[in-house]
Amino acid sequence: MDADILIKGCMILPMDGRGVIEDGAIAIEDHLITYAGPGKRASKMKAEKTIDATGMVATPGLINCHTHLAMTLFRGIAEDQPLDKWLAETIWPLEAKLKPSDIYCGSLLGCLEMMKSGTTCFADMYFHEEKVAEAVQKAGIRGVLAPGLLETLSKDLAEETLKQTIQFAKRYHQPNSTITIQLGPHAVYTCSLDFLKKVRETANRHTLGVHIHLAESEEMAKQIKKKHNQTETQLLDAIGFLGPDVLAAHCIHLNREDMRTLAQNDVKIAYNPVANMKLAQGTAKIPDLQRLGITIGLGTDGPASNNTLDMLQNMKIAALLQKAYCKDPTVLPARAMLEMATIGAAKALGLEETIGSLEQGKKADIVLIDLKKPHLTPLHNPYASIVYSANGSDVHSVIVNGTMLMENREVKALNEEEIMEKARETASNLLKR
Amino acid sequence: MDADILIKGCMILPMDGRGVIEDGAIAIEDHLITYAGPGKRASKMKAEKTIDATGMVATPGLINCHTHLAMTLFRGIAEDQPLDKWLAETIWPLEAKLKPSDIYCGSLLGCLEMMKSGTTCFADMYFHEEKVAEAVQKAGIRGVLAPGLLETLSKDLAEETLKQTIQFAKRYHQPNSTITIQLGPHAVYTCSLDFLKKVRETANRHTLGVHIHLAESEEMAKQIKKKHNQTETQLLDAIGFLGPDVLAAHCIHLNREDMRTLAQNDVKIAYNPVANMKLAQGTAKIPDLQRLGITIGLGTDGPASNNTLDMLQNMKIAALLQKAYCKDPTVLPARAMLEMATIGAAKALGLEETIGSLEQGKKADIVLIDLKKPHLTPLHNPYASIVYSANGSDVHSVIVNGTMLMENREVKALNEEEIMEKARETASNLLKR
Repeated sequence: MDADILIKGCMILPMDGRGVIEDGAIAIEDHLITYAGPGKRASKMKAEKTIDATGMVATPGLINCHTHLAMTLFRGIAEDQPLDKWLAETIWPLEAKLKPSDIYCGSLLGCLEMMKSGTTCFADMYFHEEKVAEAVQKAGIRGVLAPGLLETLSKDLAEETLKQTIQFAKRYHQPNSTITIQLGPHAVYTCSLDFLKKVRETANRHTLGVHIHLAESEEMAKQIKKKHNQTETQLLDAIGFLGPDVLAAHCIHLNREDMRTLAQNDVKIAYNPVANMKLAQGTAKIPDLQRLGITIGLGTDGPASNNTLDMLQNMKIAALLQKAYCKDPTVLPARAMLEMATIGAAKALGLEETIGSLEQGKKADIVLIDLKKPHLTPLHNPYASIVYSANGSDVHSVIVNGTMLMENREVKALNEEEIMEKARETASNLLKR
Repeated sequence: MDADILIKGCMILPMDGRGVIEDGAIAIEDHLITYAGPGKRASKMKAEKTIDATGMVATPGLINCHTHLAMTLFRGIAEDQPLDKWLAETIWPLEAKLKPSDIYCGSLLGCLEMMKSGTTCFADMYFHEEKVAEAVQKAGIRGVLAPGLLETLSKDLAEETLKQTIQFAKRYHQPNSTITIQLGPHAVYTCSLDFLKKVRETANRHTLGVHIHLAESEEMAKQIKKKHNQTETQLLDAIGFLGPDVLAAHCIHLNREDMRTLAQNDVKIAYNPVANMKLAQGTAKIPDLQRLGITIGLGTDGPASNNTLDMLQNMKIAALLQKAYCKDPTVLPARAMLEMATIGAAKALGLEETIGSLEQGKKADIVLIDLKKPHLTPLHNPYASIVYSANGSDVHSVIVNGTMLMENREVKALNEEEIMEKARETASNLLKR
């Protein structure tokens, strides 16, 4: 056998610099892509399993650069409210009640939802990340997990969690693991500068990435500026926190100097258009940030402020928001948008050697999207079809790390009914607690 | 038998002023809803056909207040371009080549797409509307059709089409017809004031509604202001054009006086957030217009500038855009958003006596949405689930005018494969012509 899995007859959007491959084939051996290119060069190839993907398009697995996965449990629980009220009256009181088993339940639901909508890798920051890791392993997808560090909740807990994260990383940073551990200092307004320095030292000592919220809320940005007479970005820069291993979520309220500082330090940005719109926090200036050469990945943020993890829908809204905000229909064109959700996102997570494109030698994280749908007909431009017309339900099959996790919308390793029923129960119990 | 069709076990969002009905039943006899309320009051009812809708939510059929349906053929054909270039270099040259049979083909694809995503009624303005009517009848859905009148193309053709529209209306305005005919003067910048006066007189004489584009493009608005020293709205008001039978699409570039004028004349507005964002035309000030008491319906605009007809996705983006634009997360909450796509839209089309809500005596236009999906779990707030989490593919079944058109996603009267194949061929031939 030449391959474990051979996908034939599909269009391929490899996102590795090559354009559209009209009649393509992809060969997978073990965890890896061994071929991704024109079908005629694979016509004699034999495989354990051959998939006829006629009428489908293959893209790299989508990568969600910022979420709080277990918040699936809070989807729709507090709607159309201002951020401060939303947090103080609903989200924080509920989060205080969350048990590790709840986190597992909500995360597994999230993994199922992501898989069914074509997301194969995600960056998470939340409580009890060891439970998120369990769900990720159960589901078989890829996760970049950052245990949240908030001194405002408890200084001792933050210190303890920081220490535990090092052990957590040692456990998961093994060959062929689908889990990467990052440090998760929540934000400048929830962590002291001393603690953030300590996080930076720990990141350096153990070669760990860092996931932080930056410049999301205008109100918080103003308060910090008033207190320190410096912006959040300037404060972080002053303590040497910024670097190419930092993933900064949101980055809305930045001045020109902040932007240049982030660019100089090669900080990566997670852009979360839906949550930013829903909570009316403002709009990240994506074209300005891109012009400075900053790497940007797309995120959904938590399902309580989105209210889905659907990256296909998210790409459409991400592009539309920038066109409206910049008053320029040419910004963030479809292909650039798909890049931001695949190879761009992989770069943002430091995983560009591993995933993010369909090319020989990369891990086989592949999504097949079924184009034989009225809303995807006719097909004039596959990038536009995917970004502007497709939604998560058009995802036909999903392969992660060389394993077929979903085929023709059937998820193999998970019991969908059971996961949904358990999530309903858990959410209902949470409200009674 | 007490009913032809009885739907049992579902949640109902009736949109008639009542709130959520948790365990509801809907009875249908002939074209009409004979009961929509708590299930226990229908427990002894018998029907020809009973549908177990456990785990689903019933809403009124969604109503798309502004589109150019046959533009499905141009979906994705010219992407990420400025409006003037998009029109002049691609859309207009292609439209000049459109034959009546192309319009039928593209419209039938559009009807199929709408049905599969829960839209049961739409307002259209385009060429060869008699072919759109044929497609609407074939599909069995409801249409409000306005043959487009553009003097800039040909004064004679505009005059001729205006006359034909009267005959067209006589043919379709019959009892139990699902088709309503309107007059379709394209816009102030494509019709002379004299012609618009004539349209108004015709509308009065034959009691026909009027569908027009208003204040979509800032550039056009500026040119008109420069030429006439009046805004588009003022010009229309001065010739007595405005009235409660006018459906004005877009209404972005209005000043306070324009808004008051539209309110005083009870003009209806179609809000098209996706196309407005995609072409970067600006944002309609929905809360301001609502505060003046103006009736607003939601529209997708043509699939070439959206690129779908999915009203579920459209509701989400419609609400998000207003929250972002107004910097206020409380504007356009989920229930108000669903109103705009159902009963509000029915009012905008002058059909509120017929459709738009699930209540006894209205035509049975009903959508069942399957909530047993990961991205719709758990269910804390059904309005939020539908507006922020659901997409068109979650629509399980569709009833229009008392007839089950789609059941468990299977469209009964249409051959999906054939319609899609024909659309692919037609689009490809158009490009070669």
